[in-house]
Amino acid sequence: MPYEFRCRQRVEFADTDMAGIVHFSNFFRYMEKAEHEFLRSLGLSVHGVDGPDVVSWPRVNAECTYRAPLSFEDELEIHLLVREKKSKSVTYEFRFRKQAAEEVVAKGSITVVSVSIDRGTGRMSAIAIPDSIDRLIEVAPQEMFE
Amino acid sequence: MPYEFRCRQRVEFADTDMAGIVHFSNFFRYMEKAEHEFLRSLGLSVHGVDGPDVVSWPRVNAECTYRAPLSFEDELEIHLLVREKKSKSVTYEFRFRKQAAEEVVAKGSITVVSVSIDRGTGRMSAIAIPDSIDRLIEVAPQEMFE
Amino acid sequence: MPYEFRCRQRVEFADTDMAGIVHFSNFFRYMEKAEHEFLRSLGLSVHGVDGPDVVSWPRVNAECTYRAPLSFEDELEIHLLVREKKSKSVTYEFRFRKQAAEEVVAKGSITVVSVSIDRGTGRMSAIAIPDSIDRLIEVAPQEMFE
Amino acid sequence: MPYEFRCRQRVEFADTDMAGIVHFSNFFRYMEKAEHEFLRSLGLSVHGVDGPDVVSWPRVNAECTYRAPLSFEDELEIHLLVREKKSKSVTYEFRFRKQAAEEVVAKGSITVVSVSIDRGTGRMSAIAIPDSIDRLIEVAPQEMFE
Repeated sequence: MPYEFRCRQRVEFADTDMAGIVHFSNFFRYMEKAEHEFLRSLGLSVHGVDGPDVVSWPRVNAECTYRAPLSFEDELEIHLLVREKKSKSVTYEFRFRKQAAEEVVAKGSITVVSVSIDRGTGRMSAIAIPDSIDRLIEVAPQEMFE
Repeated sequence: MPYEFRCRQRVEFADTDMAGIVHFSNFFRYMEKAEHEFLRSLGLSVHGVDGPDVVSWPRVNAECTYRAPLSFEDELEIHLLVREKKSKSVTYEFRFRKQAAEEVVAKGSITVVSVSIDRGTGRMSAIAIPDSIDRLIEVAPQEMFE
Repeated sequence: MPYEFRCRQRVEFADTDMAGIVHFSNFFRYMEKAEHEFLRSLGLSVHGVDGPDVVSWPRVNAECTYRAPLSFEDELEIHLLVREKKSKSVTYEFRFRKQAAEEVVAKGSITVVSVSIDRGTGRMSAIAIPDSIDRLIEVAPQEMFE
Repeated sequence: MPYEFRCRQRVEFADTDMAGIVHFSNFFRYMEKAEHEFLRSLGLSVHGVDGPDVVSWPRVNAECTYRAPLSFEDELEIHLLVREKKSKSVTYEFRFRKQAAEEVVAKGSITVVSVSIDRGTGRMSAIAIPDSIDRLIEVAPQEMFE
């Protein structure tokens, strides 16, 4: 059962700011993109129809620590790890590295909760992680976080 | 009946790119923001519930000509004009000026169509501009475009 | 000496995602915008020329906890507090509330470091917070964080 | 000598808005990304150092016509064509198609000018297209635009 995933991301021009580096908010977009690629690799989608309802995964926490700036056209490897799984939530950790380098240039996490969205009202209710998803994702071994 | 609107926009850090100026895609966000402020000033919303359906205004065309770059913390005046009104669409023109200056630094337009979105399927169908909106918006005099 | 600041933010259409709520990454843009408004209110800029160098404030950490979703056209009050000040860094805390409500819908923080950017190479070096800035910002009383 | 280029783009969650489709401003980011991939395929960069100056390509016009909405996780093919080449500017045309389909769902263009940016002041001056770039790009045959 998978507990990690790796994907690549190239820094686009529109991701940079006038300081000449990737704007800090874009690391959160990169993390989310890696999460969605991970789900797709399992045949899942972060936002899907499940009978009469839409099941989605709003974020309840997001965090990032920046160790080195990234520049236009840098190629990144994003390493996703499942850090925690509770009845209604999952926490992913993300480690950013430049191409062919070992050093972690940024490290972040996102905690998502499973919700059902009523299509009429748009109202969200927290639900237990759907079984079809729960049985596909495993928490990474503790030693990977030390 | 109103055919023009003016609002202000400050350039945020996140709007800039590594060339030190506002990224060109953000002018489209600024235009849309001005359009929505215009609609709000009339008591309308660009995306609202009308009985069982959601009425929205997807864009069918957008265009911008850039004459001078804009920088962080610049304050802009955005001047919206209703350029054309058809049975199912409206075209807005936008003129960007720096604070206290007459020169137009960018000029753009957006053409929107009136659609009804089915809440079950998300499918969009073009509809005639709702009467409640049609009677509030007028096309600007031709001489304003010369 | 100021240790807090309040400003307002309206949710724009482009800030929303297909779940119908503000995309989580945009809270970081809102926080940064509040930080920059705070600095401007003190006559400062987050990115300015200081003799031969450019002084800027890259982020080393950013974090946000989301308690309730925000929707298009919601008006927010953002309450900034200076939480910590070290020799080379400042940590700001941000509390988001909907208009005329007391409940905090999101709470986040950003830690920034003072750097000097060499204009020739673009290289950044951490520096002590410039005196002109240091003497204008104070840490908020501890009881405000309890 | 190349006059066209094809690349792929997947629609990310953050690219959508509350109408459930790709926000119109993001098509401009997709176009720019395709332009930069095209330049990279030629060994070029859109923003590079050329002796004492930085050579960059600010946009003077951008335009897009939207024929069908795009949704989360759609995969697009973007087909770039060099439509016009003048002494100081290049116009690219972009055609968006969904995977394995022939229908054009959106069509746009971007006109860029070659500038030199003074590293001290950040000031931009229009220059003739650098020879190293000019000799690598050709205008597509007229019949491709009919």
